[in-house]
Amino acid sequence: MIKASIIGATGYTGQELVKMLSGHPHIEIVGLGSKSYAGENFSKIYPHFRGIDLICENPENDEIIDKADIIFLALPHGLSVPYVKKALEKGKKVVDLGADFRIKDRDIYQSWYKTQGPEEDLLEKAVYGLCEINKEKIAGAQIVANPGCYPTTILLALIPLLQKGAIKKQNIIIDSKSGVSGAGRSLSLNTHLCETNEDLKAYGLPLHRHIPEMEQELSLNAEEEINITFTPHLIPMTRGMLSTIYLELEEGFTGEKVHSLLKEFYKDKHFVRIIGEGESPHTKWVSGSNYCDIGIFSDPRNNRITILSAIDNLIKGASGQAIQNMNIMFGLDEKAGLPLWGMYP
Amino acid sequence: MIKASIIGATGYTGQELVKMLSGHPHIEIVGLGSKSYAGENFSKIYPHFRGIDLICENPENDEIIDKADIIFLALPHGLSVPYVKKALEKGKKVVDLGADFRIKDRDIYQSWYKTQGPEEDLLEKAVYGLCEINKEKIAGAQIVANPGCYPTTILLALIPLLQKGAIKKQNIIIDSKSGVSGAGRSLSLNTHLCETNEDLKAYGLPLHRHIPEMEQELSLNAEEEINITFTPHLIPMTRGMLSTIYLELEEGFTGEKVHSLLKEFYKDKHFVRIIGEGESPHTKWVSGSNYCDIGIFSDPRNNRITILSAIDNLIKGASGQAIQNMNIMFGLDEKAGLPLWGMYP
Amino acid sequence: MIKASIIGATGYTGQELVKMLSGHPHIEIVGLGSKSYAGENFSKIYPHFRGIDLICENPENDEIIDKADIIFLALPHGLSVPYVKKALEKGKKVVDLGADFRIKDRDIYQSWYKTQGPEEDLLEKAVYGLCEINKEKIAGAQIVANPGCYPTTILLALIPLLQKGAIKKQNIIIDSKSGVSGAGRSLSLNTHLCETNEDLKAYGLPLHRHIPEMEQELSLNAEEEINITFTPHLIPMTRGMLSTIYLELEEGFTGEKVHSLLKEFYKDKHFVRIIGEGESPHTKWVSGSNYCDIGIFSDPRNNRITILSAIDNLIKGASGQAIQNMNIMFGLDEKAGLPLWGMYP
Amino acid sequence: MIKASIIGATGYTGQELVKMLSGHPHIEIVGLGSKSYAGENFSKIYPHFRGIDLICENPENDEIIDKADIIFLALPHGLSVPYVKKALEKGKKVVDLGADFRIKDRDIYQSWYKTQGPEEDLLEKAVYGLCEINKEKIAGAQIVANPGCYPTTILLALIPLLQKGAIKKQNIIIDSKSGVSGAGRSLSLNTHLCETNEDLKAYGLPLHRHIPEMEQELSLNAEEEINITFTPHLIPMTRGMLSTIYLELEEGFTGEKVHSLLKEFYKDKHFVRIIGEGESPHTKWVSGSNYCDIGIFSDPRNNRITILSAIDNLIKGASGQAIQNMNIMFGLDEKAGLPLWGMYP
Repeated sequence: MIKASIIGATGYTGQELVKMLSGHPHIEIVGLGSKSYAGENFSKIYPHFRGIDLICENPENDEIIDKADIIFLALPHGLSVPYVKKALEKGKKVVDLGADFRIKDRDIYQSWYKTQGPEEDLLEKAVYGLCEINKEKIAGAQIVANPGCYPTTILLALIPLLQKGAIKKQNIIIDSKSGVSGAGRSLSLNTHLCETNEDLKAYGLPLHRHIPEMEQELSLNAEEEINITFTPHLIPMTRGMLSTIYLELEEGFTGEKVHSLLKEFYKDKHFVRIIGEGESPHTKWVSGSNYCDIGIFSDPRNNRITILSAIDNLIKGASGQAIQNMNIMFGLDEKAGLPLWGMYP
Repeated sequence: MIKASIIGATGYTGQELVKMLSGHPHIEIVGLGSKSYAGENFSKIYPHFRGIDLICENPENDEIIDKADIIFLALPHGLSVPYVKKALEKGKKVVDLGADFRIKDRDIYQSWYKTQGPEEDLLEKAVYGLCEINKEKIAGAQIVANPGCYPTTILLALIPLLQKGAIKKQNIIIDSKSGVSGAGRSLSLNTHLCETNEDLKAYGLPLHRHIPEMEQELSLNAEEEINITFTPHLIPMTRGMLSTIYLELEEGFTGEKVHSLLKEFYKDKHFVRIIGEGESPHTKWVSGSNYCDIGIFSDPRNNRITILSAIDNLIKGASGQAIQNMNIMFGLDEKAGLPLWGMYP
Repeated sequence: MIKASIIGATGYTGQELVKMLSGHPHIEIVGLGSKSYAGENFSKIYPHFRGIDLICENPENDEIIDKADIIFLALPHGLSVPYVKKALEKGKKVVDLGADFRIKDRDIYQSWYKTQGPEEDLLEKAVYGLCEINKEKIAGAQIVANPGCYPTTILLALIPLLQKGAIKKQNIIIDSKSGVSGAGRSLSLNTHLCETNEDLKAYGLPLHRHIPEMEQELSLNAEEEINITFTPHLIPMTRGMLSTIYLELEEGFTGEKVHSLLKEFYKDKHFVRIIGEGESPHTKWVSGSNYCDIGIFSDPRNNRITILSAIDNLIKGASGQAIQNMNIMFGLDEKAGLPLWGMYP
Repeated sequence: MIKASIIGATGYTGQELVKMLSGHPHIEIVGLGSKSYAGENFSKIYPHFRGIDLICENPENDEIIDKADIIFLALPHGLSVPYVKKALEKGKKVVDLGADFRIKDRDIYQSWYKTQGPEEDLLEKAVYGLCEINKEKIAGAQIVANPGCYPTTILLALIPLLQKGAIKKQNIIIDSKSGVSGAGRSLSLNTHLCETNEDLKAYGLPLHRHIPEMEQELSLNAEEEINITFTPHLIPMTRGMLSTIYLELEEGFTGEKVHSLLKEFYKDKHFVRIIGEGESPHTKWVSGSNYCDIGIFSDPRNNRITILSAIDNLIKGASGQAIQNMNIMFGLDEKAGLPLWGMYP
């Protein structure tokens, strides 16, 4: 069995990792790191785990890294570096669910995240863990930067189109919608049921922190600098994320062709499902699963297409993709430990 | 007291009219028309009205029109014409909440609604009842076509900008989100709680029926034919509508200027509130009220602005605006009978 | 115009008072007291009030009381006494929405609320403001203790039955359910959308603080000491409260008789609606209104009846009843300023 | 591999069976029966299964039974008998998720369900599949009647107490709350999001059809005829069920003793978790899992206890328990194919 430690186990993505890894056929969870809850039974913090036999420990002790083969970091940005360093020195593998290793340009990282990122040589070792795109690099990586939730929906839809030259590289407009669990377990009026239930709003405007991550990967694949317009919205539901992406077609392309192109691109990728043209994906169809469902609509009057891309923000947008990355890093079946289907209704 | 009849009283917009009109200082409800519930006490159909003393009657009897000064039609499209004819012959005023009198071009109406619209001479009498824009025409109208909910959010935001030449007339992209009550009281999997709660999806694609209504009014105000890209989404909540509108600025304009321009345009319009730059309106701030809240974000990297426009779809998007129209038609205070504030939380 | 100040204006019940009083035909709001928000425009705190012209002030300044005829106190328990003393000295009337003046026995108050209540002579002046039961006393009161939300649902259902000897005085079991707004605007995992949405649980067990208030009023009306069993539950919705009350019938009584008895008792009380036997009230039928809807079911196999009693916890369970009390205290129409109907759907 | 067919596969419990059985290590799904969808790909009906390779077939063809070792029937009541007969003749095992085989007294069945139940000799073969109570009988059964959702919450809590004489056998009052998925996928105003969201009500009163099933099993275990008082409520959420049970203690018993007694009784039963005294179970802690969480509160002032019992109505209350029954019938690990933990948040 491969031994796994989770540092930052008591956030929503941390507990989702615990859930999936505790049923993974090749994994044994050996450490749960939490500063605030060190010494407490994990099921005290999340009583749906009543019966589990795992005690949180202080992640600053080396032990949590020593005893593991793979370390998952599920921490707020700015906190990963010391753990990554320690893990790499000890020859362990790391999947970092936070933002620290995603941005390759240290200045850009600093200007968006208001803190210094990892040093150059450390940063260079990190592979951007968008599984369906970077599988080969991930397979050989010691450290993987797990993508953000919004970028996952958007990059999976756009990278194939940019690679094939199907769409204009500028004028990309993205209207994204997220359930409230994306804001985590911390308390604010934005997560207060009475304020958020039956409410709908944009947030994080004008410049949400996921923008540089997306622009970096889009530019890389387009071989041209890309600036997107991106508006995230908060939806009164717990889970689920949908991005509606407005694109201009390059000459010679139609909605139909784009549909075929995506079907072809993803035909052997289990976790991306291209749905029928003219159908909108529903977040509920992917809720509780690691799928990304993508749909395409033609707007021939304006020579545009609209792409809709849906995930479960806590799974394909975080912990599920992290496990998929780990599976690739260890040469396991990419689907191992991941839910077969979502939960419906 | 002005006497009002409501035909189609048992839908959501019908009962909302009953609620507001029954508290209106200058109105007496004299008739509730409903084919399916003729003879039944209105509070049987909507028990929150227990104690009201109103019996539904067959709207095909002339009486319901004869005894009223103003007729509200809250019917599915395709059904208004006979009632409007009868009302006009009898010298009554009409506010039609349906789509039949909104589209001025009969061919366009037919191609989008798959049924024939009103004859030319009848159609000509109808004024498009977007209160803040067409107040003078409404004041003199015998028949007012009450705008659709999506068009209300979008036209209130865009018409001032088109009139002032602040935005490019093409490349207008609109991502709208609506609560489920927009789908009415009829039963479908789309309104089934278990299928829609905790779900999010686009619908009505690629070409939603509100498009020709919006393009007609936008083109009229832009003095140029405008084709928009429009994607509506269904949000797991009962009430509320938010449109996120992506626009390119004309030279010489900035987000700040657009903000001032809108503030100036609406400074004497009670029901449109331009909120601070950099703030997103929340649908919950307008829920239960007749307000339209509009916010603006600058995207200077792309020379774009994003406008967010929020209403309560059943009030400013339907019955509230209908009453506002009636108030204008009868020379009453525009605010009479309308809620002072929304319901929060 | 009667002048009103609200101290504790920025909680949910405070802002609900602002909403209703700002539309009240005989009231002018002259002061909003809030320690944390003194100096701020009220619409900054609750943006649905954008356009209102009210600035919060420090409630410790005498002015807020001096300039008003009636003071509403919407404060956590334990904080009302100094304001009440000052108001009474200055000859003002007071409606206290908190618990401090509800319990007539100071020892009982202290043992349940862990703080000392008002002194005997002050306490004696307070009338328990259950409008439909104590109207005459309220009319002559200078200070009214506005009932708790749970007690309102339960006492309105039980007092008539105890007065008429229709039910056994012991073995009263009450299973209550409340929306989340009852917990106020403060932040906790219990109000976190992700934790509470799609969740259901009991809370405040075994002994919720509303018990002594209910037992005091029940015992008073039964002329016998009554101990109830009471379990409150948290329901994943914002507003609404339903109490399901299990009772044993006294000899000679049936469900039908109890139904008639309640109908007779409340026939002239506008805000209590006894609904048909065999019908359950819905909280949504009273949401946004000051109504209490009561339904009765017979369980003849066990010689029991089940009574269901529904209110909007923020209106009839708090601010609506407070205004109703004020209307009675000032000899106004009991319905003045209160919503005609609730908001549906 | 054991071969399984599901008849009535397109309801919520049917699709939940498909989900769990398709991941079961010892099961192969060989047939999905649905009259309305015969010939259609299952993922057309439930698109979260996009990628599954199962076609619905007409359940009236013998084939669906012939090719299976075990038949799950997920049908409305009154429809199971012909399938059960056929299956038994062919030597197959059956788990019936409907009500037809639960009630042992045919007159009682007929008077509550208004249709005739199975003939005596067929009925006798059926074992009531409350796994934790009847495991031995289930192991030897050819046909198992899977319990109703409400009965599961209630019987698991009460049977141990009745067997040990801990509680008075009369005066049992049960206040149950269910999410909307219990009403299935069929359309009605009760499942309409706008009518049910933010609403709360009792339903099915005075006499819900689960009463005879509960009274039969309670009486059997109490060795005395028991009449309960039972009120189900509809909660605005999709999944989850909580029963609040009010009981009088027999002499010599306390809440603490009852707590120990339940802990002892269930100490080797994986799927029943007795939680700490003074804690309320949350439905969200069991959502997506096969657990039943039970909590106990003492009410010493009234010599009563209150028991709270929570399940996921579609899993432990239906399809999960059905699979648990099948596991027992085939001598498999009771937990095989069932989710390890629920989905949170």
